[in-house]
Amino acid sequence: MTTYKESGVDIDAGEELVRRIKKPVRSTFSPNVLADIGLFGAFYRASFKGIRTPVLVSSVDGVGTKLKIASLMGRHDTVGQDLVNHCVNDILVCGARPLYFMDYFATGALSPDVAEQVILGFVKACKENDCALIGGETAEMPGMYAAEEYDIAGMIVGVVDRARILNGKKVRKGDVLIGLPSTGLHTNGFSLARRVLLEKFALDQEFPELGSSLGDALLAVHRSYRSTVYPLLQGPLASSIHGLSHITGGGLEGNTMRVVPKSLALRIDWSAWERPALFSLIQRTGTVPEADMRRTFNLGVGLVLVVAKSGADAVLAALRRKRERPFVLGEVVSR
Amino acid sequence: MTTYKESGVDIDAGEELVRRIKKPVRSTFSPNVLADIGLFGAFYRASFKGIRTPVLVSSVDGVGTKLKIASLMGRHDTVGQDLVNHCVNDILVCGARPLYFMDYFATGALSPDVAEQVILGFVKACKENDCALIGGETAEMPGMYAAEEYDIAGMIVGVVDRARILNGKKVRKGDVLIGLPSTGLHTNGFSLARRVLLEKFALDQEFPELGSSLGDALLAVHRSYRSTVYPLLQGPLASSIHGLSHITGGGLEGNTMRVVPKSLALRIDWSAWERPALFSLIQRTGTVPEADMRRTFNLGVGLVLVVAKSGADAVLAALRRKRERPFVLGEVVSR
Repeated sequence: MTTYKESGVDIDAGEELVRRIKKPVRSTFSPNVLADIGLFGAFYRASFKGIRTPVLVSSVDGVGTKLKIASLMGRHDTVGQDLVNHCVNDILVCGARPLYFMDYFATGALSPDVAEQVILGFVKACKENDCALIGGETAEMPGMYAAEEYDIAGMIVGVVDRARILNGKKVRKGDVLIGLPSTGLHTNGFSLARRVLLEKFALDQEFPELGSSLGDALLAVHRSYRSTVYPLLQGPLASSIHGLSHITGGGLEGNTMRVVPKSLALRIDWSAWERPALFSLIQRTGTVPEADMRRTFNLGVGLVLVVAKSGADAVLAALRRKRERPFVLGEVVSR
Repeated sequence: MTTYKESGVDIDAGEELVRRIKKPVRSTFSPNVLADIGLFGAFYRASFKGIRTPVLVSSVDGVGTKLKIASLMGRHDTVGQDLVNHCVNDILVCGARPLYFMDYFATGALSPDVAEQVILGFVKACKENDCALIGGETAEMPGMYAAEEYDIAGMIVGVVDRARILNGKKVRKGDVLIGLPSTGLHTNGFSLARRVLLEKFALDQEFPELGSSLGDALLAVHRSYRSTVYPLLQGPLASSIHGLSHITGGGLEGNTMRVVPKSLALRIDWSAWERPALFSLIQRTGTVPEADMRRTFNLGVGLVLVVAKSGADAVLAALRRKRERPFVLGEVVSR
């Protein structure tokens, strides 16, 4: 006799998880969320006050093998934040603010404890970004994932007024590139970082230059730039901001070129900011070629603002008033 | 010296994939899709003609370990259709029609061939459902997935007029349950089916009662009910349709109870339709208890319409005119 539970799928564990997360998830709801958890679809009222021609901006993402570090450290409360913040930044650089987020959580054997930690990470970051967590799918897939392993994906929907869409069409020769610091690797380059670092070091090894253990430095939460940057897009400096780039896989140049017309190029001064110690540690330990460093990692720059030369000082000052440490790292040049 | 490629991430393979899928993906675009592939977010104009109070209805899903069957058979053109159709049905039962879909594809080592097949499955089903495929994420995660393995998740956004939302609040005692046939397991119960069947049979084994090989029967595409059911929701019979239930994990009763008030119950006549041979084969081979069969599999019923008694005959006739084979399988009773 074979039951569903014996085949590796535990419906009771799923129900236990829903019981635990229901209240925290509800705490992210806005008045536009029209339904409770448990229906087939999640309802969100398409009414966007103050936006003349609303355009939905959506993105889907994962956190890559940063999950392996989380699993090795047995710490599951940060990867959910990484994922939400990554998604928020992806639509922020299009000019949009988040409306709602949904998650996919797939695992070999559902541990309500681990899943709860991950989902509370979604909840925390959703609240910080004024974004409702309106739905999700928890999939138990024995034989596909190792029992204790899991993958997560996130989907975000935001909104922007059509006139305020940022898609690179405003970028001009002479525009200044302003960088904002990352908090670490964010969610990119973990396969290379793991390959290089985990052969030689233990995750609990302390590094004075990191100011923490290696594991803590690697797990540092991918930050959201929403609270700093979105208000600028709504204020008088908006017309000076010609483009925004979220520095993920592909690096500083690859990602910023996504919002620069093909007829133009970037002149980047790679010495314009101090490269954080974690990147130097990876490069030194693995003798990683500089070209691979530059197209794999953010190297300390998490977001780039492409700004009209005439407005650069004002944008820098506005960012500093928001307690950011912005730096000019290059400019847009002709090809 | 360690490069990113040596660590298991092949950016060139990713770029090759984008080159291959760009044109087919674009072929799914509607005039509301405002941007091309390659930006950080995907743009969709929030303008919904003929809908007075638009409500977005969203869902996220996977296809579970049906992927294992696809991999064993080396056939990757159907799972993308399964995923889109599953998502479409999930919002259809809320009363919504699809607007756009986004996918997450994660694998150990990116094969542009396999990924292309999967994505062409998304494209096919998106076109069939009048849904734009506007974005996606392809993640190469060595060490997390086996090289040739992959998981997929999908997110759909649709729209419904607030007055036409189906959320179970209209369901009354005496309502009739009308079932529509499934095409097979759809995307649920594969862990149990694999456990039971793959110990004893080969996937290429032919079964006269299945009319096909075991593998082909298991991979049968999860159908979409949109073209049959959505027009009914817009026509004169809409007021008779009190609820809709998509039969996925949890089975006929579990899923239908999601749209039935807690004060009511279901009386299901389990002999009202002929159980397809594939389910009998699983039950017989694994001596699976009937209770597990009922809460794991759709048992031949893919969608349930909860219909006012007075409108049941008209709904049955309308479904038959759409070449469906509907059957009455029970009713809503007091608890």
